[in-house]
Amino acid sequence: MVSDQTTLFSSELLKEFTVKVFLHFGVSKAEADQAADVLSLSDLRGIDSHGVARLHTYFDMFKLGRINPKPNITIVRERKSVCTVDGDNGLGLVVGPRANKIAMDKAEQHGSGWVSVCNTNHYGIASYYSFKALERDMIGWSMTNTTKLVAPLWGAERMLGTNPISIAFPGLKNRPIVIDLATSAAAYGKIEIAKRKGKTIPKGWIINKAGDMTDQPSDMIEGGALLPLGSERELGGHKGYALSAMVDILTSVLSGANWGPFAPPFALRQEIPALSVGKGIGHFFGAMQIDGFMDVAEFKQRIDDWIEVFRNTKPVKGQAAVLIPGDPEHEAEDIRRKEGIPLIKAVVDDLKDISKQTGIKFDF
Amino acid sequence: MVSDQTTLFSSELLKEFTVKVFLHFGVSKAEADQAADVLSLSDLRGIDSHGVARLHTYFDMFKLGRINPKPNITIVRERKSVCTVDGDNGLGLVVGPRANKIAMDKAEQHGSGWVSVCNTNHYGIASYYSFKALERDMIGWSMTNTTKLVAPLWGAERMLGTNPISIAFPGLKNRPIVIDLATSAAAYGKIEIAKRKGKTIPKGWIINKAGDMTDQPSDMIEGGALLPLGSERELGGHKGYALSAMVDILTSVLSGANWGPFAPPFALRQEIPALSVGKGIGHFFGAMQIDGFMDVAEFKQRIDDWIEVFRNTKPVKGQAAVLIPGDPEHEAEDIRRKEGIPLIKAVVDDLKDISKQTGIKFDF
Repeated sequence: MVSDQTTLFSSELLKEFTVKVFLHFGVSKAEADQAADVLSLSDLRGIDSHGVARLHTYFDMFKLGRINPKPNITIVRERKSVCTVDGDNGLGLVVGPRANKIAMDKAEQHGSGWVSVCNTNHYGIASYYSFKALERDMIGWSMTNTTKLVAPLWGAERMLGTNPISIAFPGLKNRPIVIDLATSAAAYGKIEIAKRKGKTIPKGWIINKAGDMTDQPSDMIEGGALLPLGSERELGGHKGYALSAMVDILTSVLSGANWGPFAPPFALRQEIPALSVGKGIGHFFGAMQIDGFMDVAEFKQRIDDWIEVFRNTKPVKGQAAVLIPGDPEHEAEDIRRKEGIPLIKAVVDDLKDISKQTGIKFDF
Repeated sequence: MVSDQTTLFSSELLKEFTVKVFLHFGVSKAEADQAADVLSLSDLRGIDSHGVARLHTYFDMFKLGRINPKPNITIVRERKSVCTVDGDNGLGLVVGPRANKIAMDKAEQHGSGWVSVCNTNHYGIASYYSFKALERDMIGWSMTNTTKLVAPLWGAERMLGTNPISIAFPGLKNRPIVIDLATSAAAYGKIEIAKRKGKTIPKGWIINKAGDMTDQPSDMIEGGALLPLGSERELGGHKGYALSAMVDILTSVLSGANWGPFAPPFALRQEIPALSVGKGIGHFFGAMQIDGFMDVAEFKQRIDDWIEVFRNTKPVKGQAAVLIPGDPEHEAEDIRRKEGIPLIKAVVDDLKDISKQTGIKFDF
């Protein structure tokens, strides 16, 4: 039985450590800072799976020379408000922010900006990017494809990633509405946790290798697949599949990246597809100037009204209130900015291993 | 027990009848043709709930003077690739196509175009609009808010519409991928059918007035609510709620329309909200020039490859194959273009009633 007990770490010190790890592999100071900022926000927002818990995987990829530490990120095709960016196999944590900035700069100039990105890697949490747009009074969209884990409805094998969609809307007095959702019914991490704890999982999360629904988390590890949001046909599983397909196409078919089952793996233990149909994985970013649609203050006031009306929905029994998308992460951020980032022992061990292999001190 | 038996009608004759009904209320010939075209495509695509089955509702709304037959549709705010359109309380079937054309014209000029629409009404099937973009080698997006029917996750009352999202991607030899999904777990129509047939419904479709899950379709009619895609927290109900919120905000908060529970009803029997927070309901259209991202033929070839790979996914037991989004509707269209549109008696009676009230012949 593995412990889930955590130890608290300073967010700032974790970020400094992360920067040094990227510098160690020849990433420039500015880009190492940028990459660490993405991972750090994930930890602050309580999305533990996408923060420093992933640092050892980035470390592995760099060590094997699978990621280019000095990418030449370029626009390869363009038409005013839209373009395709080639990330030159750089860190997704560097390529993503750059491409997102291109989308926002285009929005500044053309009212909106839309960027499809190929030849990139795992970009962290999708909402990092939609948050950035808020700083410029824009509505920001962010999507990425990821390594195959999800079966299309009625399929018995992994063909799609968990392909998240994020979009955020600024409030005036209220904190923003931040939507960030994987298009699968459940996160892979939840299945790992259930397996570690020896528990069953809800019907609707996964199918086994034969394509049957199962409540055994071990079936996922042994060749099963996640189900799309909606789980089965009757509950709308075709809709989750369609949303995942939409993300796959906008990020990867449109940019020239590897789509669907051909997306290269992020982690070492994952199978490398025999066929390549493009370059790296793909992202998609959008930004729209709020001011092009409505007075910005008026829009923010209307978002405040929306938030307040929805918060006051009559709740079902056993729940205190309806949440606004982003609420749980806002709450986590409040706590963690004060108290620090709780890390489980497995993650701390990973960081210590990086420290040992690189000589970068991890003693805080 | 009401019969579900159908009689076949010529699509062309139904369309002519529809045009005459709109002309009867003073809609211009061009706009009546346009409106009938939207309803007709819905019937051809097998989406029976949104075709002539809705004509009596449009008829009722016109009769009561609730829809403006001669709207002055205008751009009220604009910034290059983005704008807000006021539909002047016209038919959604007229305002929608016009606003969608503005989005596509903007895309022609600026690479992409994005239009949020207020002061409009029910616009038919969401995919009518994404189809139009395909004709111009664009990727088209379409969303609308609708009258409240859906509870936000953990809410015990109707606060959101079924708020659909559509997007379509063209193939080269294959027919397009057409995504068109309501963000609720199930369609209201399915609950009506179950009620008519005296059947129970799957757990996860609705809650009753008290907020409890139920398998009794009558609970929906008696003040219950649809659940968002994902149904419950464990299966991702917060994600369907977030997607519905996204649609509500892009279509209606951003345009100045009535959002959430304040969306005015489409049908007479539905309650009119006591408060108005804007004008009419809202739509959102987007169009992106494929050529701005990638050579159009190359993109279409990549879509063909995507379709073929996904069609060849190993299927689960009991299913012949994985479907591509749009497949069922392509198939319906093939059949109906040859054989005609099957209408149930209740719809035929509605059309006869319109005929009787207006003097427009319905004798085919």
